[in-house]
Amino acid sequence: MAIAPSCFALDPDTPGTLQQRIRQMVAEAILAGRLQPGERMPSSRGLASYLGVSRITVTLAYGDLVADDFLQARGRSGYFVSAQAVPPPVRAAPRVQDGAGVDWARALGPRAEAPLGSAKPADWRSYRFPFIYGQADPALFDHQSWRACTLRALGQRDFPAMSDDSFEADDPRLVEYIARHSLPRRGILARPEEVLVTLGAQNALWLAAQLLLNQRRVAGIEDPGYPGLRAILGQTRCRVQPLAVGPQGLEPDRLPRGLDVLFCTPSHHCPTGATMPLNTRRALLRRAEAEGLLVVEDDYEFELATGGAALPALKALDRSDRVIHVGSFSKSLFPGLRLGYLVGAAPFIREARALRASVLRHPPGLIQRAAAYFLSLGHHDAMLRRLGAAFHQRRQITLDAVAREGLHLAGSTRAPGGSSLWMRAPDGLDTAALAARLRGQGVLIEPGAPFFHGPQAPTGFYRIAYSSIPADRIPEGIARIARAMEAPHG
Amino acid sequence: MAIAPSCFALDPDTPGTLQQRIRQMVAEAILAGRLQPGERMPSSRGLASYLGVSRITVTLAYGDLVADDFLQARGRSGYFVSAQAVPPPVRAAPRVQDGAGVDWARALGPRAEAPLGSAKPADWRSYRFPFIYGQADPALFDHQSWRACTLRALGQRDFPAMSDDSFEADDPRLVEYIARHSLPRRGILARPEEVLVTLGAQNALWLAAQLLLNQRRVAGIEDPGYPGLRAILGQTRCRVQPLAVGPQGLEPDRLPRGLDVLFCTPSHHCPTGATMPLNTRRALLRRAEAEGLLVVEDDYEFELATGGAALPALKALDRSDRVIHVGSFSKSLFPGLRLGYLVGAAPFIREARALRASVLRHPPGLIQRAAAYFLSLGHHDAMLRRLGAAFHQRRQITLDAVAREGLHLAGSTRAPGGSSLWMRAPDGLDTAALAARLRGQGVLIEPGAPFFHGPQAPTGFYRIAYSSIPADRIPEGIARIARAMEAPHG
Repeated sequence: MAIAPSCFALDPDTPGTLQQRIRQMVAEAILAGRLQPGERMPSSRGLASYLGVSRITVTLAYGDLVADDFLQARGRSGYFVSAQAVPPPVRAAPRVQDGAGVDWARALGPRAEAPLGSAKPADWRSYRFPFIYGQADPALFDHQSWRACTLRALGQRDFPAMSDDSFEADDPRLVEYIARHSLPRRGILARPEEVLVTLGAQNALWLAAQLLLNQRRVAGIEDPGYPGLRAILGQTRCRVQPLAVGPQGLEPDRLPRGLDVLFCTPSHHCPTGATMPLNTRRALLRRAEAEGLLVVEDDYEFELATGGAALPALKALDRSDRVIHVGSFSKSLFPGLRLGYLVGAAPFIREARALRASVLRHPPGLIQRAAAYFLSLGHHDAMLRRLGAAFHQRRQITLDAVAREGLHLAGSTRAPGGSSLWMRAPDGLDTAALAARLRGQGVLIEPGAPFFHGPQAPTGFYRIAYSSIPADRIPEGIARIARAMEAPHG
Repeated sequence: MAIAPSCFALDPDTPGTLQQRIRQMVAEAILAGRLQPGERMPSSRGLASYLGVSRITVTLAYGDLVADDFLQARGRSGYFVSAQAVPPPVRAAPRVQDGAGVDWARALGPRAEAPLGSAKPADWRSYRFPFIYGQADPALFDHQSWRACTLRALGQRDFPAMSDDSFEADDPRLVEYIARHSLPRRGILARPEEVLVTLGAQNALWLAAQLLLNQRRVAGIEDPGYPGLRAILGQTRCRVQPLAVGPQGLEPDRLPRGLDVLFCTPSHHCPTGATMPLNTRRALLRRAEAEGLLVVEDDYEFELATGGAALPALKALDRSDRVIHVGSFSKSLFPGLRLGYLVGAAPFIREARALRASVLRHPPGLIQRAAAYFLSLGHHDAMLRRLGAAFHQRRQITLDAVAREGLHLAGSTRAPGGSSLWMRAPDGLDTAALAARLRGQGVLIEPGAPFFHGPQAPTGFYRIAYSSIPADRIPEGIARIARAMEAPHG
C-alpha cells in the first residue's frame, strides 16, 4: 500500500518554486524519520491532485529526489523511499531547534516533579528472574473472562456507556458494585455519593492531596513510604513531615502535633509489608479525632490477604467521617487498567468529582463498564482467590530460599498476604549498585533508597516481589542475589 | 443466587452480644439500601462460618430480623430481604451524618470549580430532537471495526501493552501513528518526544494551563469561548483576560499587551464556528513572537472539515516552537474514549509528561492500543469521510430549515465543516427559558450564556448541533424551536 497523499502538507511559508517546495516536503519527511525505507510514495497523479498542483510538477520533484537518492524509481510500480536516504543511527535535526524561540526555563518555572520512583526497565519481561513489583502475571490473569466482559461492554446496548461524554459522572454500575460488594468486605458502608471512580490509586491520592493541602498545611507521610506520593505532595507546596515506621507500621503515640493530613497504608505498609493491629488503628483514629486530623488511607493490596478475614479498614472504624479511603484494581486486575476509587464524606467526594471533571472529565466508559461486568459476574473474586493462593505459595518458596541463602529480612513476615518482601543487605552494600550488577545476570530487584524521605536515604535496603516471577524460578533467583552480595565488587 | 457472606462485616466497635451485633449488621445493610427487597440472604451456616461464630447465633439473629420484618423466612429456601424493610422513597440516614465530625468548609477551603457547562440531561437519547453537541452518533460509528480493533488489543500478544504499569510512558504505536499520520495532515511535523497522549482534550488543556500559568500570569481567552476552560484556569489562579471574537475568530490587532498565554480555537472557533484565515494566523504568530506570548491551540474538530484541504494549524506555521497544539479523538471517534494529545517543544512535553504521571500515570493501555489499531488500519480515515459527508448533508438541511423558519444565525456559515450552528434568539428572549420549554416538547438545544465570560453574559444566544440528530428529524425540530419562540411565555 502506498503512503496516503494526506500524509503530506505543503508548507505555505517555504520559499522557492512549487517543484522545490514539494521536493523539500518529501525530503524533510524522510529525514525526520516519518517515512521508512522501502515505503511506496503516493502516485504523482494522486499527490498532485491532493495538493492542487499539476502532475508534471510532482513528477519533476520526484525526479529530483531520485537523483539525490531520497527515492528509487521501480519502473511501473512507482517510487519508493530509498534505503540510503535515512541516516540510520542518528535522527536528523528538526527544522527548528527544541524550544529555540522560547525560554522554557522561565515559561515553565521551577518544577519539582520527582520521578515516580521506578527503575523498572520497559523490557522487564525478557529478564529470567523479575522480582519486580506491581505488574500483572499473565499466567494468573483470567484473560478469557476479561475478554468476554470487554466484548459485552462493546455491545450495541452499552454504546451510551462507552461513547458518551459523561462530564463528571461515573458508570453507575461500577459504583454500585464497589459500594455494595467491594467496600463491605473492608467493613465500609458507603452510599454512591460517597464514592468516586479514579484513574487508579495514583489519581485518587493526587485528588485528595490537591483538595486537602496547600502551602500552609502539613502532611504526615510514612518514612519509608510510597515514593509516588512525594511528587503529589510537591505540587501542593505543603510542608511534609516524615514519620518513622515501626515493625507494625505507623505508631500513633509518636505522631507529632500540628499535622493536618496523614497519609498511611495500614493494611500493608509500603514497602515493609507491616500490618497495623486493630488496637493501633483505633488509637490512630482517637488521636486523629482529638487533633482534628484527616487521614488518607491507601488500602494497598488488601484483597490479597490470605488466611482469615482481613482486619477492617481504618475507614470502617471511622466514626467522624475523617478517613478518606483509597482503593485500586491495579493489583487484583492489572495496573494498566488505571481504575481505582476514593471513598469519603459526601462534601469531600463532591469537590473531588468537580476537580476530576476539570482535570480529565471521567475515566473511559469502556474500561469502567468492562470492569463492572468482570466484578459483578464474580470473576474478580475468583481472581483474588487464585492470586491469593499463588502468592501464598510463592511467598513460602521465597521465604525458604531467603533463609537457605542467608539473606536478611527487614520487614514483617507475620502479616498475611502481600506480594513482596522488604530486605536488608549486608552492612556497607549499596543496593542500587547491587541491582545494577544483578541486571546483567537476568535478576531484577528494587533498590530501597527511593522509598525514604530526604537526601540521606539509607542505601542498604531492597524489595523483592514475587507477583511476576514463576514459583520454580524463585530459588535460583534468590541464590543469584546471595552470590552477587558475596562477589567482590567496587 | 444468595448474597455472598463476604458482603457482611461485623463492626468490632458495636456493643452488645454477638447475636445483637449480627442483627444490627444486617439491618443496617438493608436500611442503607445495600440489600434489595427479595434478595436471598446467605445461609445461616455460610454466614456463621464466614464470621467465625456459631450457627445458632446467626439463626437466632435471623429470627429476630424476621420478627421485625426485615427478613422473610420461606421454608426450606431460606431467608429473604423483606419488601417492607426498606422505606421506599427516602433513603435511610447513614450511621454518621455527612461529615458531621469534620468542618469540610474549612478542610476544603474556598473552591472555585465551575461546572463543566453542560446542561445535557443524562437521558438525552430518549429525546426525539436532540440538537445536542459533542456526542457520538451510533448510526455513523463503525462499531464493527472498533470491536475488532479492541479484540485485537485484548489478545495475548498485546498483554504487556494492556496490563503493564507504564509509569510515565505512552503506547509507542499510538504516538507513532499520531506523529506520522494525524499531525502531518495539519501540516505539523513532530517527533515522538514532542507528543504526549492525554485523557482527552480536557486533560491536555488542563496540563498546559497548570504548567504555563500561576497567580502572576495572565491568560487570554476567547469570549465567547469554551466553558470548560474556566474551571481549568481557575485552578491556576492566573488573571483571565477575555478577548472579543469577530466574525473570523480572534483578532490579533486587538490583543492587549501583557498576556502570557493565549488559548484559542483557530480551526473552528468555539462556539461560533468561525475559521481564522491564513493571514490572520500568521499575524497572530508574529504578534506572539513580538510579545513573547505562548499560544495554546485547541484544534477543535478540524478533521470534520469538508471540501478541500483544511488550513494548516497554527502549530504548522509556528517558527519559534511557541504554539502548544491540542488534538482529540472525541469528535472523530467518541468522547467516552477520553483520548487526546498535546504537541509542543520537547522541554514542555517533558514537564507535561511528569505532571501527567503524578496525576494519573498514563491513559489505560487497552484504550491506547485499540485506538492505535483503529487508526493504523484506516478505519479512522473512513470514519472521518463518513462523518464529514453526513454532517455536510445535515448542515445543509439545518441551514435550509433555519432559513425557512426565519431563525437567526449568529455565527459564520462560511467556515466548512463543524457540527453545530451558533444562533441568536429574538430580542428579549432568554434562551435558558426557551431551552427548558423546548425540553417538554422533545427538543434539546444549548443555551448560550455559559460560553460567555463574566456575570453579565448575554442570554439571547443558543447553539444547535446536528451531530446526534438524524437528518430527517431536523426540519421538524427546527420548526418546533421557531414555534416555541413565537408562543406567548412568561
